[in-house]
Amino acid sequence: MGHSPSGEPMRQGGRLARRARRRRLLLWAVAGIFLVGISGYRAPASEGLRVSDPVAPVAQNAAEQAAAAPQSGGQESGAHTTARFLLIIVAILMVGKFSGELAERIGQPAVLGELLGGVILGGSVLGIVPTAPGDPMAEMVHLLAEIGVVILLFEVGLETDLKEMFRVGKAAAVVAGIGVLVPFLLGAGYWYFADPDLGAHPEGVSLTKIALFVGATLTATSVGITARVLSDLDQMRTREARTIIGAAVIDDVLGLVMLALVVGLAAGTDVTVGTVTWTLVKAIGFLVLAVIIGNFIGPHLFDFVDRLRVRGVLLVSAFCFALLLAALADISDSAMIIGSFAAGIILSSTNQFDLVDERIEPVADVFTPIFFVSVGAAVNVRLVLPWTDEFNTGVLVIGGVLTAVAVAGKVVSGFSVPWEKMNSLAIGVGMIPRGEVGLIFADIGRRGGLLSDAVFSAILIMVMVSTFITPPLLTWIFRRDGRSEWPPGPIGGC
Amino acid sequence: MGHSPSGEPMRQGGRLARRARRRRLLLWAVAGIFLVGISGYRAPASEGLRVSDPVAPVAQNAAEQAAAAPQSGGQESGAHTTARFLLIIVAILMVGKFSGELAERIGQPAVLGELLGGVILGGSVLGIVPTAPGDPMAEMVHLLAEIGVVILLFEVGLETDLKEMFRVGKAAAVVAGIGVLVPFLLGAGYWYFADPDLGAHPEGVSLTKIALFVGATLTATSVGITARVLSDLDQMRTREARTIIGAAVIDDVLGLVMLALVVGLAAGTDVTVGTVTWTLVKAIGFLVLAVIIGNFIGPHLFDFVDRLRVRGVLLVSAFCFALLLAALADISDSAMIIGSFAAGIILSSTNQFDLVDERIEPVADVFTPIFFVSVGAAVNVRLVLPWTDEFNTGVLVIGGVLTAVAVAGKVVSGFSVPWEKMNSLAIGVGMIPRGEVGLIFADIGRRGGLLSDAVFSAILIMVMVSTFITPPLLTWIFRRDGRSEWPPGPIGGC
Repeated sequence: MGHSPSGEPMRQGGRLARRARRRRLLLWAVAGIFLVGISGYRAPASEGLRVSDPVAPVAQNAAEQAAAAPQSGGQESGAHTTARFLLIIVAILMVGKFSGELAERIGQPAVLGELLGGVILGGSVLGIVPTAPGDPMAEMVHLLAEIGVVILLFEVGLETDLKEMFRVGKAAAVVAGIGVLVPFLLGAGYWYFADPDLGAHPEGVSLTKIALFVGATLTATSVGITARVLSDLDQMRTREARTIIGAAVIDDVLGLVMLALVVGLAAGTDVTVGTVTWTLVKAIGFLVLAVIIGNFIGPHLFDFVDRLRVRGVLLVSAFCFALLLAALADISDSAMIIGSFAAGIILSSTNQFDLVDERIEPVADVFTPIFFVSVGAAVNVRLVLPWTDEFNTGVLVIGGVLTAVAVAGKVVSGFSVPWEKMNSLAIGVGMIPRGEVGLIFADIGRRGGLLSDAVFSAILIMVMVSTFITPPLLTWIFRRDGRSEWPPGPIGGC
Repeated sequence: MGHSPSGEPMRQGGRLARRARRRRLLLWAVAGIFLVGISGYRAPASEGLRVSDPVAPVAQNAAEQAAAAPQSGGQESGAHTTARFLLIIVAILMVGKFSGELAERIGQPAVLGELLGGVILGGSVLGIVPTAPGDPMAEMVHLLAEIGVVILLFEVGLETDLKEMFRVGKAAAVVAGIGVLVPFLLGAGYWYFADPDLGAHPEGVSLTKIALFVGATLTATSVGITARVLSDLDQMRTREARTIIGAAVIDDVLGLVMLALVVGLAAGTDVTVGTVTWTLVKAIGFLVLAVIIGNFIGPHLFDFVDRLRVRGVLLVSAFCFALLLAALADISDSAMIIGSFAAGIILSSTNQFDLVDERIEPVADVFTPIFFVSVGAAVNVRLVLPWTDEFNTGVLVIGGVLTAVAVAGKVVSGFSVPWEKMNSLAIGVGMIPRGEVGLIFADIGRRGGLLSDAVFSAILIMVMVSTFITPPLLTWIFRRDGRSEWPPGPIGGC
């Protein structure tokens, strides 16, 4: 009944019920008006934004072309651009939060809801989130999404304790290694030998490259989703959970290194033993150098910032630190998220850690859903809907095989440490969910022209299904051992 | 000496001093590397971004042109766009915060430092912040700046208590009314009769329009700056301060209404008694309707949101509420900031006010400096530097006259309530600083093609000087009455 300050007597239940009914009606009215308003407003501008449109050139080029074009009524179209931009942001955030809420209500991680919300807002359903590469609005949403993923990995870095990671030791390392190697080999091997795309590769891209890329997307467990599921199940203090988290973190770092390789692939470098080694050296080198130099400079830098007194200076400095290292990583041909992950690790060892961790959260709350929703928006859902003309059985089959590979590869890793007296199945299942990192891989592949829409959608099916099945499976396993109750209590507000 | 957890004995002063010296050296090295890196990196991309370049069309148009342009290597240019974008944001925020800090250290409001930092980053000095209208990067920075000003006015709205405003009563209303009317009439009259621009108006714009516009930019006291200065001087509990704040709030609302008129002017509507009335009706109508309907729906809406449990849902909902009302205001031909101001007022009466107020702050910390820095970046500082070829004595003279009008008009308003036993001079001087609203007016005029670069720079001189002189003047007046000490204590960290 909310927190009404007026404190009414209990017997007025009828009045409260009537009020609740009126409130629900009001909310439906507001939601309706909002959706009608959005879809009505987007109509004139979005005719050219369907996914099926011919691919237009990127914004950089648009600028060059624009320089030669005639001027048109500046302020007015500018003003409407801004309103449209604000409405798109509102739609992304509200649909993201509400579908995230729905997902949590049925016992799933919120990120799943955000992805599905994105699919609905995307070009293949409502067309509210622009996805055509040449649309300047799509580029703007993309840049905000990039800030979102940079801040997300910054938060993961903040929560990564290097010493803790070394301490979890051998078991976690073995689980992580096997859990990366097996899905990678299975996935790449399947793709290389079966060629499920049947030669329909994007122009000028070799089968080997695509196979390596698909293998890479299968590797990284999402430490965020795993940790969230374990804490939702109230199993965070078990030995299994500690091993899973340790392995997922190592796994994430291996994934980040693999990502650098994948970025190199997407940028079009040839795949030889030399380039792979050089990419690995660059990625690990950037991470190690950044963390070492950062651990030397970071504490002094933030002790200095801490003595400044202008409003918000600590938060803004931390935010900028993450963005700066991300940009440096990008410029030095590594992956942006390696930079912001390093920034997080560096900051986690400063005296200002607590305050940064607390104050970056609202900023992350605003930016990260934009990433997940726009990844969802890039899915062409018509490929898997039998009643549409774009329906493609292949996408479903490929998605199914990739999911099987993803699940099998991780479950195997749980049984790789038989000398430890632990619930091997729980560990293996706990490693299943793929999340941010897999999505980032797939997104890079799509934007780099390496993955077709069909393959991208198949990988997304894998990411979503693997995320979707973990909570009920883990619940079942832990409950079988009599350690957990379902459903768990409230997950904790705002 | 920071918060070193190792707790060393006091006698090791020498080691600490050496450590402090090493730290300073390190910081200079980092700052140096950063600035060299930024200016080096921007070089290849920014050749075409000088303010003096021929004006290119806006982004909307660029998209249409782009659709016909040939495709170019997607991923690579995309990746570099992102890195450049992140570096620009980093430069804006860090220079903004550090110059804000410097301003506070010499007893000035931080916003002044952000404006000056923007001038240095802008096209006429370093050229790091893109300002040419056709550059997609400039459009992106502009959209983030728009979010910044929307959130800023949302915060002002959150802190505005409607009842309090009605209670401060007659004195504040009279001071506000006189303080709006006198500068407006003086400014518009000066411009209309003296025509200091000597007929060099942008094409197709009548002298009457420019005169009304210039008059409008002189009206609104910055409630943010005034409140900040009074609290810095520890004078918040005096009767004078309460009258100043009350008047500044009313004044801000009058300013918002005037802004709607000004937006209409910029959009090119003819100025007749009918259109002025209609604009006023629309602006006041939007504000009143939004607040009335919002006060009915808002509490239910946010009681509902409060019962959701997904992470960050309350903050994100409040953020979206501000953006949504801003977009609605824009679509209904009112001003965006009226919408977000109304959103703030509505939310200030909900049960979730405290939490929203606390959690929106970090988000505002990230977005609002982008607005002030990019307003500063639009200044062509060469117009007032005698050793450049663009030097224009007129800008200095006009800026001086406008400043005199701005100061005189507000000081007069302090003496408009002789029947109240208060320090009239303190009230008048407290009303002097122009800030956000004046800057927004000037920015709209420049983007709408109503104000030339020269007039825009002259108005900015007025805004900066009026903001600059208030803290020392107020300090002097309050100290003359033996009520204040200078310098005041630390202003309060992060």
